[in-house]
Amino acid sequence: MTKPFAFELLHVCKQTGARRGRLHTPHGVIETPVFMPVGTQASVKTMSPEELKDCGAQIILSNTYHLHLRPGEALVERAGGLHRFMHWNRPILTDSGGFQVFSLADLRKVEERGVEFRSHLDGSKRFIGPEESIAIQQALGSDIMMQFDECSPYPCDYDRAKGAMHRTIRWLERCMKAWNDDGRQALFGIVQGAFYADLRVECAREMAKLDLPGFGIGGLSVGEPKEVMYEMLEKLMPWMPEQKPRYLMGVGSPDCLIEGVLRGVDMFDCVLATRVARNGTVFTHDGRLVVRNAKYAEDFTPLDPDCDCYACRNYTRAYIRHLFKAGEILALRLNSIHNIYFLTKMMEEMRAAIEQDALLDWANAFYARHGRGNW
Amino acid sequence: MTKPFAFELLHVCKQTGARRGRLHTPHGVIETPVFMPVGTQASVKTMSPEELKDCGAQIILSNTYHLHLRPGEALVERAGGLHRFMHWNRPILTDSGGFQVFSLADLRKVEERGVEFRSHLDGSKRFIGPEESIAIQQALGSDIMMQFDECSPYPCDYDRAKGAMHRTIRWLERCMKAWNDDGRQALFGIVQGAFYADLRVECAREMAKLDLPGFGIGGLSVGEPKEVMYEMLEKLMPWMPEQKPRYLMGVGSPDCLIEGVLRGVDMFDCVLATRVARNGTVFTHDGRLVVRNAKYAEDFTPLDPDCDCYACRNYTRAYIRHLFKAGEILALRLNSIHNIYFLTKMMEEMRAAIEQDALLDWANAFYARHGRGNW
Repeated sequence: MTKPFAFELLHVCKQTGARRGRLHTPHGVIETPVFMPVGTQASVKTMSPEELKDCGAQIILSNTYHLHLRPGEALVERAGGLHRFMHWNRPILTDSGGFQVFSLADLRKVEERGVEFRSHLDGSKRFIGPEESIAIQQALGSDIMMQFDECSPYPCDYDRAKGAMHRTIRWLERCMKAWNDDGRQALFGIVQGAFYADLRVECAREMAKLDLPGFGIGGLSVGEPKEVMYEMLEKLMPWMPEQKPRYLMGVGSPDCLIEGVLRGVDMFDCVLATRVARNGTVFTHDGRLVVRNAKYAEDFTPLDPDCDCYACRNYTRAYIRHLFKAGEILALRLNSIHNIYFLTKMMEEMRAAIEQDALLDWANAFYARHGRGNW
Repeated sequence: MTKPFAFELLHVCKQTGARRGRLHTPHGVIETPVFMPVGTQASVKTMSPEELKDCGAQIILSNTYHLHLRPGEALVERAGGLHRFMHWNRPILTDSGGFQVFSLADLRKVEERGVEFRSHLDGSKRFIGPEESIAIQQALGSDIMMQFDECSPYPCDYDRAKGAMHRTIRWLERCMKAWNDDGRQALFGIVQGAFYADLRVECAREMAKLDLPGFGIGGLSVGEPKEVMYEMLEKLMPWMPEQKPRYLMGVGSPDCLIEGVLRGVDMFDCVLATRVARNGTVFTHDGRLVVRNAKYAEDFTPLDPDCDCYACRNYTRAYIRHLFKAGEILALRLNSIHNIYFLTKMMEEMRAAIEQDALLDWANAFYARHGRGNW
């Protein structure tokens, strides 16, 4: 039997260096590169688990901060864990709460022991540190836990970024001590260091010494230009452990997925697909399409004529636009299904292209129709 | 081949007089008695057509007034008709717009030729009479069209009720003239007469002379006590054509479905099931359950342990309550699926009980657990 959380690096694209891999988990195998839809509050917004599976979702992400505040990890644990609570039997990755504490909570106070903050729901005083984050994630029972980290903003001065990076390494060591490593849950470290290549490399080298099942890349896609992110990835990647999965956190537009895979990323997550869907915007092979627009009122073609998702097989732009104008929830569902399917299909095609050593050809063909700067 | 819209009266329950029938339509056979979910704006709120089928829905209702205002029947016709527009290949019944014009539109002016009103959406001036209503419904392409009628409020004085009833008969004759009876769409008359038995009987007797495929009973369930409605049904039913389907409009709580079937009704529709679902309330064999309530926070049983709908097979009260508290759309979907399934299952059980001449036994057993006055 394969070791829990074994990562097999199956092939490296000769044309690009992109990686084709396979990550084993207690809830099934994940073919990488993979996009993970986000189910913040134990639900991928508007979608059922069956719809996610029909869209090809292999693993979803859920949020420690949100579930800790509501309904609370104790309730989820009594329900039999997050998988059972939300009726999802494939792998789940939980973030650590770190990013949300920095970006959502009020009055946060960051100290060496952790972060004191007020809940965005009721203002109640809370504390999460490395030990608390791991305890919460263990109660939730996700397959992959992320370490509690300190994420630097953009821009960020060197000393602050360096401090946050070193603290993240110290917090990782505390997370590892708190982690009950019984083969049921993996723990990933998170490489920080803001936009300073030397800090990123130092962080990656330090973390590479730890025999962890995988590593996240945090603190990117936080407002910087895309070229800045791509450059940072290029400088960082040679220092990431080759035999471990690399998860670029919070990234998920079509172009960024391609650029990430080209640079050796194995895993992605982002709310973009489902968020823009609910606002009436969908991905297509020809780029962004705002189906709410008046010009689609009598357009009886699918959202994307070259897509074979449930929405595109059965509904027209005119109908979905009507549902949006009428305030019907089915509109949000159909757009969400389409966008998730679009991204998982992209990843599937990229996996095939890597195996054929032809990812650059695939990317060029995609960009020729879609354009590069759409998102 | 069976004549279009032929109604077969298969059996009359010896214990109660309830009717077991079968209505043929161009989009399939409807086993009666039947409950029809309501898709006001070309969508049964929150649900997909596949989910409706999984719930056992045989036919749905859609609203002429709403579709006329948005997106307009011309657009639906260009889309290939309502079935194709909304991806529903089973029968559709459209109301005439009469009831909505009276209850939703502003500044309505009722004259012999029809009703002038202002749209509730944009205040634009509109007119619908019998000919316009039929023209709209023919453009939509529903299987069953309802006549344009004048619905009396509750309470209503005798002369006004009598006038509205006679006008409804005259409007029915105009609807029949406007109706292009090519076997593709049926037209049902609507018996009016408020809460005056003699007016109801007169209306039914007059309409019985017209060889129509079926008849609605309108103007009930408009605010009167349930006993008043049941009494009116009892007085009216002997005068309704025995060989034609009888559709009690706007009625759909569990107890009213039972009482209607017991009194010889074949078809029902109501928004109650989906509306209360979205507010957090579900039907159960033990009566009303408000799943939002705090007492279900850690209740890991299904909405109704004796239900085998998708929601009850896979989710707990605790999870659905969490989704409601978190504002997740999946909550609305699961409750809607459950409530529609609950009613279609009730109808299925009643059809079987009628065939076994045991509907009263079935009703008594249902009430013993559920109670009578829950809705």
